[in-house]
Amino acid sequence: MSSLNYLPVMLGVFGLFCAFLVYNKMKAAPAGSGKVVEIGDQIHLGAMVFMKAEYSRLAVFCVICIVALGLSDLGWSTASAFFLGAICSGTAGYIGMYAATKANVRTATAAQDQGASAALTVAFFGGSVMGLTVASMGLLGLGILYLAFGGDPHTAHVIHGFGMGASSVALFSRVGGGIFTKSADVGADLVGKIEAGIPEDDPRNPGVIADNVGDNVGDVAGMGSDIFESYCGSMIASIAIAATMSAATIATLASSQEVLMFMPLALASIGLLCSIAGIFAVKVFSAKSPEVALRIGTMGASLLFIAVAYVLITQLGGTINLWIAVLTGAIGGIIIGLVTEYYTGGAPVRKLAKDGETGAATVLISGLALGMQSVAIPVITIAAIIFISSLYADLYGVGIAAVGMLATVGITMAIDAYGPVADNAGGIAEMAGMGEETREITDSLDELGNTTAAIGKGFAIGAAALAALALISAYIETVNVEAIRQGGQAMQLIINDPIVLVGMFLGGIFPFLVSAMTMTAVGDAAFDMIHEIRRQFKEIPGLLEGTAQPDTARCVDIATKAALNKMIMPGVLAVGAPVVVGFGLGPVALGGMLGGALICCVMMALMMANAGGAWDNAKKFVEKGNLGGKGSDVHTAVVVGDTVGDPLKDTSGPSMNILINVMAIVSLVIAPLLV
Amino acid sequence: MSSLNYLPVMLGVFGLFCAFLVYNKMKAAPAGSGKVVEIGDQIHLGAMVFMKAEYSRLAVFCVICIVALGLSDLGWSTASAFFLGAICSGTAGYIGMYAATKANVRTATAAQDQGASAALTVAFFGGSVMGLTVASMGLLGLGILYLAFGGDPHTAHVIHGFGMGASSVALFSRVGGGIFTKSADVGADLVGKIEAGIPEDDPRNPGVIADNVGDNVGDVAGMGSDIFESYCGSMIASIAIAATMSAATIATLASSQEVLMFMPLALASIGLLCSIAGIFAVKVFSAKSPEVALRIGTMGASLLFIAVAYVLITQLGGTINLWIAVLTGAIGGIIIGLVTEYYTGGAPVRKLAKDGETGAATVLISGLALGMQSVAIPVITIAAIIFISSLYADLYGVGIAAVGMLATVGITMAIDAYGPVADNAGGIAEMAGMGEETREITDSLDELGNTTAAIGKGFAIGAAALAALALISAYIETVNVEAIRQGGQAMQLIINDPIVLVGMFLGGIFPFLVSAMTMTAVGDAAFDMIHEIRRQFKEIPGLLEGTAQPDTARCVDIATKAALNKMIMPGVLAVGAPVVVGFGLGPVALGGMLGGALICCVMMALMMANAGGAWDNAKKFVEKGNLGGKGSDVHTAVVVGDTVGDPLKDTSGPSMNILINVMAIVSLVIAPLLV
Repeated sequence: MSSLNYLPVMLGVFGLFCAFLVYNKMKAAPAGSGKVVEIGDQIHLGAMVFMKAEYSRLAVFCVICIVALGLSDLGWSTASAFFLGAICSGTAGYIGMYAATKANVRTATAAQDQGASAALTVAFFGGSVMGLTVASMGLLGLGILYLAFGGDPHTAHVIHGFGMGASSVALFSRVGGGIFTKSADVGADLVGKIEAGIPEDDPRNPGVIADNVGDNVGDVAGMGSDIFESYCGSMIASIAIAATMSAATIATLASSQEVLMFMPLALASIGLLCSIAGIFAVKVFSAKSPEVALRIGTMGASLLFIAVAYVLITQLGGTINLWIAVLTGAIGGIIIGLVTEYYTGGAPVRKLAKDGETGAATVLISGLALGMQSVAIPVITIAAIIFISSLYADLYGVGIAAVGMLATVGITMAIDAYGPVADNAGGIAEMAGMGEETREITDSLDELGNTTAAIGKGFAIGAAALAALALISAYIETVNVEAIRQGGQAMQLIINDPIVLVGMFLGGIFPFLVSAMTMTAVGDAAFDMIHEIRRQFKEIPGLLEGTAQPDTARCVDIATKAALNKMIMPGVLAVGAPVVVGFGLGPVALGGMLGGALICCVMMALMMANAGGAWDNAKKFVEKGNLGGKGSDVHTAVVVGDTVGDPLKDTSGPSMNILINVMAIVSLVIAPLLV
Repeated sequence: MSSLNYLPVMLGVFGLFCAFLVYNKMKAAPAGSGKVVEIGDQIHLGAMVFMKAEYSRLAVFCVICIVALGLSDLGWSTASAFFLGAICSGTAGYIGMYAATKANVRTATAAQDQGASAALTVAFFGGSVMGLTVASMGLLGLGILYLAFGGDPHTAHVIHGFGMGASSVALFSRVGGGIFTKSADVGADLVGKIEAGIPEDDPRNPGVIADNVGDNVGDVAGMGSDIFESYCGSMIASIAIAATMSAATIATLASSQEVLMFMPLALASIGLLCSIAGIFAVKVFSAKSPEVALRIGTMGASLLFIAVAYVLITQLGGTINLWIAVLTGAIGGIIIGLVTEYYTGGAPVRKLAKDGETGAATVLISGLALGMQSVAIPVITIAAIIFISSLYADLYGVGIAAVGMLATVGITMAIDAYGPVADNAGGIAEMAGMGEETREITDSLDELGNTTAAIGKGFAIGAAALAALALISAYIETVNVEAIRQGGQAMQLIINDPIVLVGMFLGGIFPFLVSAMTMTAVGDAAFDMIHEIRRQFKEIPGLLEGTAQPDTARCVDIATKAALNKMIMPGVLAVGAPVVVGFGLGPVALGGMLGGALICCVMMALMMANAGGAWDNAKKFVEKGNLGGKGSDVHTAVVVGDTVGDPLKDTSGPSMNILINVMAIVSLVIAPLLV
């Protein structure tokens, strides 16, 4: 076995190498000239300036955490793991976003010069850098820690620090990026589209560069660290459950405990290879319709993974029970993705657009209802995954199901990140006046990106829910093992124990509070943005006529400041709450709190993502000329819906995934101290 | 003790007698003449027609349940209790609404002829009939059942049937009434205020009678059966917990099990007397400002109850621990009410109105955020009540805290029902052209009613949460007692048991699904209503000029049909889900399901009630002339917010209270069959 232990690290390095090759391939495409390059540089620069400011704040937070961990009984090993996790997550986000802001201009130029197929390749390669980097950095970081601490169940808990580091960075990136992107988007849309009556991405709009920067910092970097965190969380949880497993349970699942502890890394390793194969397949099939190419890539990678996983598990000494858990996760993820696609792209969206005939209010009522209704099937799917995977492989099965869902993250994340690249390309095409045909190509790529992004979002929520659940189980096991080691008793989290109930109620508050904070942040920043854009339209002579330049830097600045200031409270709340409740009310209340938070986070995440996605596409449906098309009353109504949905789907909703994972991983890290 | 057992029945009869006196006093006020009476009759008739149609459908559902219960192992005693519960709940709603639709014209006339003080008295007396009837019917029904079955812990479970009957009626009344009132309100507002530019309650608006009917069927009858159900639920749960309590726990709380079983009824009995005293106080102080009079009445009744409860508990042989539980409930209810008042009437509302400066979208984002944020303190309060009351009196304490919160329901419900009476009076004054001064008086009464209604809503949510929790505990105890009786083991609802988790996730779906269904129902019905009103404005010549009559009956008909058709699915879902999960996945999964549903119901109920209330008052704030006043862009924006909030606060939100209680009580009823 021991030589196999080097596999994750080696594959991590190999994956990074592939990302480098893909990056070079993308970079080799012509960037265009003149205004195109200029706008591309503005977006790139804005994004980089924001990232630097964000990371320097993040560094302060990380240093505090590292010192606190190091000085606590957990010691400097855990603190180092935290450091490594934070670095890996930050690096993945940075590289991915760097590549995306190089790919956007090249996609626009390829669309203009070479057509749809070439544009798809460039945009997809841009996204693939992110996908491969996320998967590789995760394997590399966890692989190194596993070599150092993972072989021994008694030191394996050090690895939890990695998850906490990754989650902390993810939380701030997601929340900060989400606030940035939506305050810019809402502000630019409201004044530009509704008041000034100019199209989206019109170069006269002062907020439009900030809007495009936002796509990168929010939907690329934020999403990247979000997925990174679930990806690592599911592996860490599985390792932790395996490390505390009884000999009797081990015997039903594999030939040894070591096999179970290594299994998540092994599965992720072959998942990375399958992703690389999938990315290659997309390139090969790019001459067909973009939709077909992307579908072959993702579905192919998933099917390949399921098949190879069977061989791997049995070869390593695992039983078929483990493979069934992997299978439920992989299939469950696809089901959740398809349901998301239906609610954000199918008949419900057309009905939502039609509700615009009676004004904005009915669009909003229907959209909220749609979001609420859409939670049913995904949650039933999650429940079914829990039921089946735990039936075959106990709670370890839930962790492995999450690993199975996320193993091909290299390609799913590539497709997620492809969306904002295509979106940006469209923005650049519009701003630089690259012509109707170019815009049509980028629009079709963007539209496809929206669908794939919706699927990816559903996928991310499902995976995050399972990863969090596995982490919560690991937390409970860790507390119990420690309690028994100290001669005490295992705790019992009984649902009608008043202290568990108190915890559950408290846990339910956080998703609502964090959603409120992030939405308010977007609302407030958008308010400032709107006033600034209105001011520029009024005070800069010739701006609306197109003879003067807007002051786009000021809008970028407003979004940056809002994001940096408003990301702190949610972050501190998420990291601090488990510590306060754990030490204040005890590990039993904390267990209840995680349970309550988990349920509410999943529900809110699904509701907000799907309502927002549906409003977005209802607007697009009308803008295609249906129900009166652009400029009609129906259009005005659905634009309001889209604007409300923006922070729901891109700020508050995605924060839910990380919130529950941060709370769970912090609990897991402090678990030994709570007894 | 045994002669004391007759007290609840006797006080129930006495309370009904008081309600009769109050009704006669109110009825004696002059109804006015001409157009006023005509409009009043239209509203009264519309409400009665709806109630009859609703009750005849309800009867079918009840007959099915009664037969099913009677034929099951639970037998005809439980079925009879169900019948009694349904009858009591239905009667309370009917009487209350009957009185309210007589009080509305009289309030308007009193405002015109005699001024604010007389109008307050009439409106408040109208509401008091509902308050007293709810409390009295509850005491009467439960008192009779207690005499027949309650003395013996082995037959006490028959009483659960009463709760199930009351809850079923409440669910349909609340959902049906909620759909009716909001489809009429949204439809009338959207076309009338926004499109035609005519004021609220303008007689030219064809939807205006339906709107006023809706206030009665939704906010009076629906609210009445909602509170009735929590009131009875909290008592039934306490009796059930006492009936299954161990001798050791009993010894710490009271001199005998009988005392504990009778205690909830005894507390409610003195609560009724305190309410009657409070109602009397409002009348005495009605010459002062209405606000002062209402506050003296409610606060006085609460304080009196707390004091008398101490004497009662110690005299009956209970310990001070029980009184502490009562105290936490009573104080907790007040805190939740005050927080609700702040979020729906304080600084947050003014900020919300200001967000209207940047359009409807920012009003909606901020309002949703406000609703989400507002859950924090009430939920912390609920957690604190659970913590303290169970610390002193175990889970029985949670039930008794709920009883303590609801004991003075006679007056809190009176004030709740007073709101729609005043609102109706304003509508009648406007429609009948009773002059500016009359309208000003009814407006001030209505405004006060909105504040008190908001407090009442927060109160209702808190009480429903505790009652449901007590019912869930009773469910678990009942399953365990039955399991042990059959020689098995008590079940353990451990939070990381996969089957409990599956249940919790499934439970979380229902609040979202029922909210979606009810909102969609309102959206669809409003859509029909809007088309009908638009049609009338277009096709009836002279309608907008005031020379022709609108066809108001058709609008009433649209709302009635929508309500009756769309209330069925949520009702069947709520009653059916525990049965399906309980028999399909077992009592452990059902326990988890109740836990997940409880947390999500409470969160959603608070969020929707407070967001809706805040939007409503933001609109009122602008209409008073702030931020540009009526007709401004800000006004248009806040009207959209108010319209979206309408179904949230008056349809979906209030359904949550009943949903969780119905699910809990159905589980409790079927508990003995699940082992």
